[in-house]
Amino acid sequence: MTNDVSLRQLLELIQCPSTVEHNQRKIRGITTLAVATEEHLSFLANKRYRAALSSTQAAAVLVDQATYDAWQAGTISCDATLLACADPYLAFALVQRFFHPQATGLGDHHPSAVIHPDADIADSVDIAPQAVIGRGSRIAKGCRIGTGVVVGDDCIIEENCLIHPRVVIADGCHLGKRVIIQAGAVIGSDGFGYAWNGISHVKIPQTGAVYLHDDVEVGANACIDRGALEDTVIHEDVKIDNLVQIGHNAEIGSKTVIVSQVGVAGSTTIGRGCQLGGQAGVAGHLTVGDFCKIAGQSGVIGNLEAGGVYGGTPAVPHRMWLKGIALVNRLPELFKKQ
Amino acid sequence: MTNDVSLRQLLELIQCPSTVEHNQRKIRGITTLAVATEEHLSFLANKRYRAALSSTQAAAVLVDQATYDAWQAGTISCDATLLACADPYLAFALVQRFFHPQATGLGDHHPSAVIHPDADIADSVDIAPQAVIGRGSRIAKGCRIGTGVVVGDDCIIEENCLIHPRVVIADGCHLGKRVIIQAGAVIGSDGFGYAWNGISHVKIPQTGAVYLHDDVEVGANACIDRGALEDTVIHEDVKIDNLVQIGHNAEIGSKTVIVSQVGVAGSTTIGRGCQLGGQAGVAGHLTVGDFCKIAGQSGVIGNLEAGGVYGGTPAVPHRMWLKGIALVNRLPELFKKQ
Amino acid sequence: MTNDVSLRQLLELIQCPSTVEHNQRKIRGITTLAVATEEHLSFLANKRYRAALSSTQAAAVLVDQATYDAWQAGTISCDATLLACADPYLAFALVQRFFHPQATGLGDHHPSAVIHPDADIADSVDIAPQAVIGRGSRIAKGCRIGTGVVVGDDCIIEENCLIHPRVVIADGCHLGKRVIIQAGAVIGSDGFGYAWNGISHVKIPQTGAVYLHDDVEVGANACIDRGALEDTVIHEDVKIDNLVQIGHNAEIGSKTVIVSQVGVAGSTTIGRGCQLGGQAGVAGHLTVGDFCKIAGQSGVIGNLEAGGVYGGTPAVPHRMWLKGIALVNRLPELFKKQ
Repeated sequence: MTNDVSLRQLLELIQCPSTVEHNQRKIRGITTLAVATEEHLSFLANKRYRAALSSTQAAAVLVDQATYDAWQAGTISCDATLLACADPYLAFALVQRFFHPQATGLGDHHPSAVIHPDADIADSVDIAPQAVIGRGSRIAKGCRIGTGVVVGDDCIIEENCLIHPRVVIADGCHLGKRVIIQAGAVIGSDGFGYAWNGISHVKIPQTGAVYLHDDVEVGANACIDRGALEDTVIHEDVKIDNLVQIGHNAEIGSKTVIVSQVGVAGSTTIGRGCQLGGQAGVAGHLTVGDFCKIAGQSGVIGNLEAGGVYGGTPAVPHRMWLKGIALVNRLPELFKKQ
Repeated sequence: MTNDVSLRQLLELIQCPSTVEHNQRKIRGITTLAVATEEHLSFLANKRYRAALSSTQAAAVLVDQATYDAWQAGTISCDATLLACADPYLAFALVQRFFHPQATGLGDHHPSAVIHPDADIADSVDIAPQAVIGRGSRIAKGCRIGTGVVVGDDCIIEENCLIHPRVVIADGCHLGKRVIIQAGAVIGSDGFGYAWNGISHVKIPQTGAVYLHDDVEVGANACIDRGALEDTVIHEDVKIDNLVQIGHNAEIGSKTVIVSQVGVAGSTTIGRGCQLGGQAGVAGHLTVGDFCKIAGQSGVIGNLEAGGVYGGTPAVPHRMWLKGIALVNRLPELFKKQ
Repeated sequence: MTNDVSLRQLLELIQCPSTVEHNQRKIRGITTLAVATEEHLSFLANKRYRAALSSTQAAAVLVDQATYDAWQAGTISCDATLLACADPYLAFALVQRFFHPQATGLGDHHPSAVIHPDADIADSVDIAPQAVIGRGSRIAKGCRIGTGVVVGDDCIIEENCLIHPRVVIADGCHLGKRVIIQAGAVIGSDGFGYAWNGISHVKIPQTGAVYLHDDVEVGANACIDRGALEDTVIHEDVKIDNLVQIGHNAEIGSKTVIVSQVGVAGSTTIGRGCQLGGQAGVAGHLTVGDFCKIAGQSGVIGNLEAGGVYGGTPAVPHRMWLKGIALVNRLPELFKKQ
């Protein structure tokens, strides 16, 4: 944690135009309205928590313009100083990152780690206890390989990746820069592919790999299968939550967000900038256009046009789904009338 | 396994008022009606399995009063001795625990484990092969740390916890007494939090932790995210099944039961004594009242009143959902009439 | 990878009756139409990808009879030689397996592995870094135990199994021949069983185990709970995808396929040759007949007759579900008429 920063310096960091009297006050961190002391900055990013303004002890509170105006007009009561900024949640993120910068590797190798002599590890890579790095794998500068991580053979891990404990990165997988993998995730498990010979299942060797581009994050115990022949590809800045399943040869467009427990089946392409709500499922060999929003628990069984909002199983336009499903609860009265 | 116990001693253990002639018979364990021999106790806790009474070889069978009465009246045929007790399933549990008491640690440390010199480990803690314990972590007496478990820095693990293989307990997490974590679970992965800066996702450092209170159990490969600022809190005696996802800053009330593959999104509060059926999902920033029952696969997108029974997506009162959804299958006839 | 095989030899391997002029051409592998060069075989197994025929560089393409006929008739344009075979996907699988045969163990033990002196390991078993094998476990010839795998005490692993990294096989579990377990899966976690004593949950010791019969495959981070008293049983040639949950004492019939994120609750019996779509759930203590197909995300809450196709929550015959759910989207017009 960084110490000894003034409120003024933080406001410069987040490009907040406000000026406050107690500019020189030392700030120790940013936290919730309820927990903040006079040495903390706080923020209001969700209207649900507005009531907490009245009792916060924070040195100052980042809010949106509307909240600031209401406070100035006396509609909202808050003894702390409110500071208007364009996006208080983003401002919070930037301040929090200031106080908690992501560490990069310093070159520590724990003696219990098993590093193949033919692995190519940059000087500044940290390798925690009991990590195992396979033959021919390359790990670039600044990476931190967590406790008990398994990196298979012939992997490429570009600079400043952070791999949490017990992650498995199987043979031949490729991680771009600044990729973060949470604990227990499996990158490069075999795709689920079998042919039927009339008597039994014939396993199809899965010889593609997984390519995670720059700034991808993968959640805890999530699974991304290797491709059957070509690679499964996750483009830059995709964020994947815990326990998500990505099937073989899926391709996920850049900046798409995939919430916990979603399943994307094999050979499906998801566009850029999409949002998939928790527990949604997308069947195989489909195309979901750019900037789609798919509600939690939806089941997508056909291609989806770009920019749409979808819900239900089978997924339809979200508004249509909401209207229909609400009326299901009134079906008894309808049937009674017949 | 404990040996050499008489039927009479077991009946005292479970406070069963019955007296039987063969009181002194030695009993080796409790098992299903089908498998039991004359050296076993058995039980009937689910009516589906009543037919198995007719052929069981058990020394005696724990049943409820109604089954006992039917047997006395000759309606049910069973050569074994039936014993009426208030709750045969609870009686089974107590007898099974008698024969299989949970072991506590004896102070064994495997030489392959990596224990930070600044960790504080009580004398009686068992540490299995290749476990890794971080700096500043404290582990109280009687705990058993399984093979390949990772305990991060500054964790607190209170007495008599049982941590199964390959569990990850990340930095700063706190486990109360007698907590059990099944294999592969991840406690304290980063919450899924990003701000959008107009170009890319800005990861928000997750600086809270996870607090699991006394007698919590977490299932295999389940994930409980650390809080963004404050802790994610699971209160005492909560039971969480395999592959469940608990988002950052969720709070789960005491004695609530969460079945496999449920997802609880961030900042949601679930009350005490609730039951969440398998694969149900609860959206973020909601409040579910005490003693709610939520059917499997339901999708909760609003606050729920205490004591209710809910089903469907979006979740509504269970009876309403069941009535409506049943009529969906009859919609073709309704539309034909129009 | 095997090299230096002629097209003719591969056609014999897959019993393809076609004869082609360039029979003696050396083939290096089989891959997609888009990637194949003149040294590759390719295949068309899904009509969606038919357009790629027109530009493929493959030495020859395995297709079904109809595609072959259309090509002969000039309806389909493809410069490569098409080869008709009964099942191009099966033919692909066989050729791919020829080029990528599954390796079996050669007797390598990494010095960092921890093998209990009372474990019984056949000479040809490979044991990767930091695997841990418990007391009394037996591992038969040809098995490959991956990095960081935990095999508990008293397990039996029959010949030629392949256990990927970080798998946990808990005490007393039994794997038949040629079982494959993907990374991070947990075999033999405790079943989710508690009795209620009026004040708190009483954990029921789970003293059964898991029996995976020959040729079972289990996906990454999937969980199969041990039985409460008797075993959880997965019969031969069952294929289980990533993140699937199988509850205690479930029994899965031979050759059944269970897609990612499915949950099967405790004491449920699934028949032979069934297909469970992704994210489907089956409640506890049920019986699903042989050869049932259950659509993705379905919720099964009653017994299902053999041979049926089911969908929806609660699951009903699939055709009925599809008809009804499609009309839900038209409910607003129906209600307007009332």
